[in-house]
Amino acid sequence: MTVPTPAPPPPHSTDRLETFSDGVFAVAITLLVLGLHVSAPRGGLARALANEWPHYATYVVSFLTIGIIWMNHHAQFKRIEHADRTLMVLNLVLLMIVTAIPFPTSLLASYLHDGADEHVAAAVYAGTLLAMSIAFFSTYVWAARRKLFAPWVGEQQVGYLVRRNGAGLLVYAIAIGVAFTSASASLVLCGVVALYYLHPGRSVAASS
Amino acid sequence: MTVPTPAPPPPHSTDRLETFSDGVFAVAITLLVLGLHVSAPRGGLARALANEWPHYATYVVSFLTIGIIWMNHHAQFKRIEHADRTLMVLNLVLLMIVTAIPFPTSLLASYLHDGADEHVAAAVYAGTLLAMSIAFFSTYVWAARRKLFAPWVGEQQVGYLVRRNGAGLLVYAIAIGVAFTSASASLVLCGVVALYYLHPGRSVAASS
Amino acid sequence: MTVPTPAPPPPHSTDRLETFSDGVFAVAITLLVLGLHVSAPRGGLARALANEWPHYATYVVSFLTIGIIWMNHHAQFKRIEHADRTLMVLNLVLLMIVTAIPFPTSLLASYLHDGADEHVAAAVYAGTLLAMSIAFFSTYVWAARRKLFAPWVGEQQVGYLVRRNGAGLLVYAIAIGVAFTSASASLVLCGVVALYYLHPGRSVAASS
Amino acid sequence: MTVPTPAPPPPHSTDRLETFSDGVFAVAITLLVLGLHVSAPRGGLARALANEWPHYATYVVSFLTIGIIWMNHHAQFKRIEHADRTLMVLNLVLLMIVTAIPFPTSLLASYLHDGADEHVAAAVYAGTLLAMSIAFFSTYVWAARRKLFAPWVGEQQVGYLVRRNGAGLLVYAIAIGVAFTSASASLVLCGVVALYYLHPGRSVAASS
Repeated sequence: MTVPTPAPPPPHSTDRLETFSDGVFAVAITLLVLGLHVSAPRGGLARALANEWPHYATYVVSFLTIGIIWMNHHAQFKRIEHADRTLMVLNLVLLMIVTAIPFPTSLLASYLHDGADEHVAAAVYAGTLLAMSIAFFSTYVWAARRKLFAPWVGEQQVGYLVRRNGAGLLVYAIAIGVAFTSASASLVLCGVVALYYLHPGRSVAASS
Repeated sequence: MTVPTPAPPPPHSTDRLETFSDGVFAVAITLLVLGLHVSAPRGGLARALANEWPHYATYVVSFLTIGIIWMNHHAQFKRIEHADRTLMVLNLVLLMIVTAIPFPTSLLASYLHDGADEHVAAAVYAGTLLAMSIAFFSTYVWAARRKLFAPWVGEQQVGYLVRRNGAGLLVYAIAIGVAFTSASASLVLCGVVALYYLHPGRSVAASS
Repeated sequence: MTVPTPAPPPPHSTDRLETFSDGVFAVAITLLVLGLHVSAPRGGLARALANEWPHYATYVVSFLTIGIIWMNHHAQFKRIEHADRTLMVLNLVLLMIVTAIPFPTSLLASYLHDGADEHVAAAVYAGTLLAMSIAFFSTYVWAARRKLFAPWVGEQQVGYLVRRNGAGLLVYAIAIGVAFTSASASLVLCGVVALYYLHPGRSVAASS
Repeated sequence: MTVPTPAPPPPHSTDRLETFSDGVFAVAITLLVLGLHVSAPRGGLARALANEWPHYATYVVSFLTIGIIWMNHHAQFKRIEHADRTLMVLNLVLLMIVTAIPFPTSLLASYLHDGADEHVAAAVYAGTLLAMSIAFFSTYVWAARRKLFAPWVGEQQVGYLVRRNGAGLLVYAIAIGVAFTSASASLVLCGVVALYYLHPGRSVAASS
């Protein structure tokens, strides 16, 4: 007669990690609206609103960027079957950077077209997006190394995803350099990365 | 003997898209409260609070509007069986506009009864709600075209829903025009749309 | 041979209503922290922090109140098997009031011990909590009338819950009256309601 | 013939408690970004940004601390099979303290390197983290006493977890004392606790 063994602990599914991450993404993306406001409307509200265009432009780029990184996060953790502690820590670092995005967004919106300071603001902005991409990329690398991906995720697909994400890293790095020449051009480059990822990519990566 | 095929990727359910959307709706609707505050209460707090009525009126209209679009979103994605990348992008654009709503809400609250500027503020407000409706409407059109609806959703129901949503679009468009005559009347029209959608509609659309 | 009937629409479960509500409760309760801040610390930070005690007191009362209404909401919707449109609208009105709570909280914190205005602020605060309770109560009444409760919820339990909730309504109404005599006493009464509901009540309502 | 008994109420699972808690953690951690801002940038934006380093340092320590307490909360409620009312109240108190963290964070960031006041700010900061740890610790003690843990959680593991959490309590208590000598050293100690908990610990606690 054997002593009944207690049921084993449930496997490390990624469910609650995804719920928490979704919450952080949702709040961070929504706090962007706090950067929208109109200051002393001399010359009429319509003109004052028009002058605030850098706030709308940065709002759209940051919103799409966080939205896309969420979509990719969604696809990424659908491919990952279980999360280990290191992956949770990497995910936490990613969320720490995503959460900070409203700050450089507001910074760039305030300093765009403001002499020398706009270059610094744009570099800080592109630098934050680069840091976010690196953190996201590291979850791929870790999951691949530790074989945390589900069996249906093929080697070929992982390779494609790595190249696809690497492209974003490269453009953000270029955007930091461009910032010191033109802050607007740097913002446009960041927007181009967002538009690129909105496009679903090859069918092999249909779910990315 | 055959090589065991890895399990296919899970189908594109809409679960996590809904979780994320719920989060964004929940935060956007809650940030509306940040528009409520009392400025320098000369003549007593009671009077100062009473003078803030445009903030309460716009709070109620915006809250109900976001709440209803959430309820409709809820019903919409219950009808949709799986989401493709384009639907996710359309949903992201919808969320981008919903998230921005606290800004025109606060704008209208601040400028109501403030000369010429109130007309601009009311037009921006109604315009944002129109943009939101168009984005929501486009998820219907896309889902219908790509046959993403569940089998139990009949053609007739889709047609009814399209007409019902079209009505909202029309009234918001009228509210933009009305804004240039009377900002208050424009806000009332937007409130009427909310009340209209609070009503459940025909039984065929009981779940809308 | 019969035409295959499409599967019927899924029943109106309360799952996503609860997810959305949880989100709104979570954000509203968290936004209370924005009311905490220290103004110009003349005479040292320690003293300035001590002078802010009305902010801590109202923070605790509002936090526990929203937390408890969430716990009751949680228990309430566990008892409800499916939600109809009216229940969703009543729930939306409840959320609209809950979301507004940071405003009267900040109001009362700012005006406590500030002459005549503290009475108005305390009455607005207690009045908001009364409105919240009425909205919550109405979800009971509606669910009971439309027999939306699960079969395991007995008549006796519903009666007990109605009496238990009625007690809160009564005390909040008294707190409005007391506000005009003593704002602090009114806040204490609101805190007493919170402590009362923290206690689990009779075993029959163990799940309330 | 017997009257059919209605199905019993569903057991007190911790699902919705976790959803709500996740929401509160997600919002509290995200509101930290509101503490990041740049004041009047005399001498150039780059220098102004550099001068804000206490805001970044406190942001990182608070973010990691909330993130880790979330991860531990996640592991804790995976071990707990059902929640009673007292556990829900203890959890609510924990959330009340976690939600307040952006306030002492912003306080410490503002007063670091500001004479006598920095000591008070650092003590308030470390004191808040100590209070949070005590609240979290009390959920262990309660769950152990009421045998709310799942059968697969062994006595030995609970003992290990208690010791591991006790270590955090001790260091936070020391950090309060150190605050009156050096505010920066106190913040570093709080950061060390975060780094300690980022590390997964012994394999027996692999899931903590």
